[in-house]
Amino acid sequence: MPASTPARPRVIIIGAGFGGLYAARTLSNQSVDVLLIDRHNYHTFTPLLYQVATSGLEPEQIAYPVRGIFHHAPNIRFLLGTVTTIDTINRRVIVEAAGGPREEAYDALIVAGGSVTNTFGNADLERYAFGLKDLDEAIALRQHILTLFERAVWEEDEAQRQALLTIVVVGGGPTGMETAGAMLELYRHVLRKDYSSMGDLQARVILVEASDRLLAPYPPNLRDSAYEQLQSLGVEILLNNPVEQVSADQITLKDGTVIPTNTLIWAAGVKASPLAALLPVPLVRGGRVPVQPTLEVTGLQDVYVIGDMMALDDAAGRPYPMLAPVAKEGGILAARNILARLAGQPQMPFRYNDRGTMATIGRNRAVAWVFNRIPLTGVLAWLAWLALHLVTLLGVRNRLGVLLNWAWNYVTYDRSVRVILGRGESVRVSRGEGVTEA
Amino acid sequence: MPASTPARPRVIIIGAGFGGLYAARTLSNQSVDVLLIDRHNYHTFTPLLYQVATSGLEPEQIAYPVRGIFHHAPNIRFLLGTVTTIDTINRRVIVEAAGGPREEAYDALIVAGGSVTNTFGNADLERYAFGLKDLDEAIALRQHILTLFERAVWEEDEAQRQALLTIVVVGGGPTGMETAGAMLELYRHVLRKDYSSMGDLQARVILVEASDRLLAPYPPNLRDSAYEQLQSLGVEILLNNPVEQVSADQITLKDGTVIPTNTLIWAAGVKASPLAALLPVPLVRGGRVPVQPTLEVTGLQDVYVIGDMMALDDAAGRPYPMLAPVAKEGGILAARNILARLAGQPQMPFRYNDRGTMATIGRNRAVAWVFNRIPLTGVLAWLAWLALHLVTLLGVRNRLGVLLNWAWNYVTYDRSVRVILGRGESVRVSRGEGVTEA
Repeated sequence: MPASTPARPRVIIIGAGFGGLYAARTLSNQSVDVLLIDRHNYHTFTPLLYQVATSGLEPEQIAYPVRGIFHHAPNIRFLLGTVTTIDTINRRVIVEAAGGPREEAYDALIVAGGSVTNTFGNADLERYAFGLKDLDEAIALRQHILTLFERAVWEEDEAQRQALLTIVVVGGGPTGMETAGAMLELYRHVLRKDYSSMGDLQARVILVEASDRLLAPYPPNLRDSAYEQLQSLGVEILLNNPVEQVSADQITLKDGTVIPTNTLIWAAGVKASPLAALLPVPLVRGGRVPVQPTLEVTGLQDVYVIGDMMALDDAAGRPYPMLAPVAKEGGILAARNILARLAGQPQMPFRYNDRGTMATIGRNRAVAWVFNRIPLTGVLAWLAWLALHLVTLLGVRNRLGVLLNWAWNYVTYDRSVRVILGRGESVRVSRGEGVTEA
Repeated sequence: MPASTPARPRVIIIGAGFGGLYAARTLSNQSVDVLLIDRHNYHTFTPLLYQVATSGLEPEQIAYPVRGIFHHAPNIRFLLGTVTTIDTINRRVIVEAAGGPREEAYDALIVAGGSVTNTFGNADLERYAFGLKDLDEAIALRQHILTLFERAVWEEDEAQRQALLTIVVVGGGPTGMETAGAMLELYRHVLRKDYSSMGDLQARVILVEASDRLLAPYPPNLRDSAYEQLQSLGVEILLNNPVEQVSADQITLKDGTVIPTNTLIWAAGVKASPLAALLPVPLVRGGRVPVQPTLEVTGLQDVYVIGDMMALDDAAGRPYPMLAPVAKEGGILAARNILARLAGQPQMPFRYNDRGTMATIGRNRAVAWVFNRIPLTGVLAWLAWLALHLVTLLGVRNRLGVLLNWAWNYVTYDRSVRVILGRGESVRVSRGEGVTEA
């Protein structure tokens, strides 16, 4: 217990992603003391990470300082640090903060650590694959790609050069598709011009999917459209072909195909943040935490898990998708349920207001399934995608900056953000190893 | 010698700073083959580094990809790498490139490595001080400052907290002044609001100068104005007080004053890039290379040194200042002299068209000495400073981005770029250790 017990009920929120942020917003200026903990001092707009990785946006444009969000909410405090212990018996968490370890007590806890790349225990994947789950990973991928192109231009061995210029994206969901499309456009519109003096460098972008389809949860006509749009852009698509083996310079697929490449982007699986393992409950699929419809963890009182970390099925028995809106609505409900319990009122069950899904493929190319009823493809879907992402991005300055970059890139076919910062340390999936996501 | 000797004379330019860039531009589409070498794939607009360090601008906004500049100049090739050997007898350089070492031959060489922070061999300074000479250093300083504030807010020991909140800038030249002013404004307008829930944190910014004046080369009325503007902003100014000792948590000045602080920014000296030591000539003050008025190195033929690396006096016997315009005009002249010699024409001597100097202190505060004749202070000087820097910044997108950030910061008093990227490794002056600047 801390030296001075707070006068008001104390709520700790772990994670400032979509779920944690909206939970904190819901509790702002209510009669509770909130402590929001994250290992970054900013909220990341994760849907646009792939645009940072492909030199389309500045990293700071999709990052919003957490403290800036809560200027006008004196009941919300922020702690920069990594949670290392959750003690549900004594109701406290231990945080490895910049200034040393801290112990913080709670009356109610919301765990919203999101998800991390899942390499399914494959050590080679862990070592060689790039993930796209946070800004550091996106920047690392950007540096890697740009550095490989700088190498390729001076490489005299034809086969070596082709490997440097081959980008393999594994995973046929929205992230994999968006990344593959954006990588191809980075090459097509920008790098080919940059390196024109060296002859026509032939970059390849290959999208590998284990199952027989892209965008599995979409209706068939949208799946077909996505396939067709991606292929006409120039992305090579390999279906029904799981990755068998990975090394520093090649990938072997199940059918025996060997792809020489120095770049493997792994978008084929995520799992719950390792924070889940700090809770004294058995975890289910992908390391997720089983919760009641109220979002309270099954078997624990006053502990809520939301967003990508929660295991909860909808009325039809399907797990809720790992999407920002699900996390956001979960954050709001968990916060409301905490306030309800404090007020002696009944808690409400989770209901997700599904407004559909969309994925962009490239310039003027996208698919959208509005309200899971109206299918859109091509330019229309792409414009809907642009508008939605601009509107949901946090902060007017960030919106203006992103708009400026998008307009610039669209009109000029340029990507000006292609600078290699840092001293070239490659940061791959394994960087996240052992790091407690908070 | 390389396998295929180039048909046309080959010019190597080391460094894509202001000097190297303008040399390459002057040679673009001339009948020479140019190889431009830099250890970054971008040109850095160094005059605005302090704004990156103080969360005012995104790093990518003052970085411009080198390849983007020379799309339309097929005779200019770019090599990303660090020069490790200059062999003036066999006329070749060895480059540690991303793909391994390369040997490149030249007929004429321009060395334009710029300058690095000079810690005068003081190991403690090397270890504890922050420099502001490249983007990596600027980002490292930004992370450091923001992380200290996150620590300070939770620090219960009053003296410790004050040390975390004390920023010492050493050096009363333009860089020191600009950094001190911008740090104070970062605190005043942004961080105090960010951390308001924790009571009124009292940050101190102290500018330490060994001599008895700020901005030594300026006329007295401008020096006085700079002093007065900086002091009224809230910066504490200590003159006549060289730094005696430095440790992780305090600084001792010559008069015995001890300042507890975790942040020392060293803007009190630069020296020529270590590239200078690769040339077979004796170096003079600050490791600089003596050159003839034609900018050819004294004692070497067809080797030119320009910008911060050159030691050359003007007609009045004063060394040329280490400023971007001097480097730029040096680059243009060295390139022209190379073309002149190839054409059998006489080389021209260096003449610097001095348009004056200026330094900004903060919002609406600056001093400018236009054409070294017209003194400007306050808002007028500040507007002149803004206009000049916007106009000279490379690339329309960067200009728009910077303009957006400046307008945003001015109107809202905000600095949205205050995000701590990377995993918190502190990068101080010592990072540059042993690195050959190229």
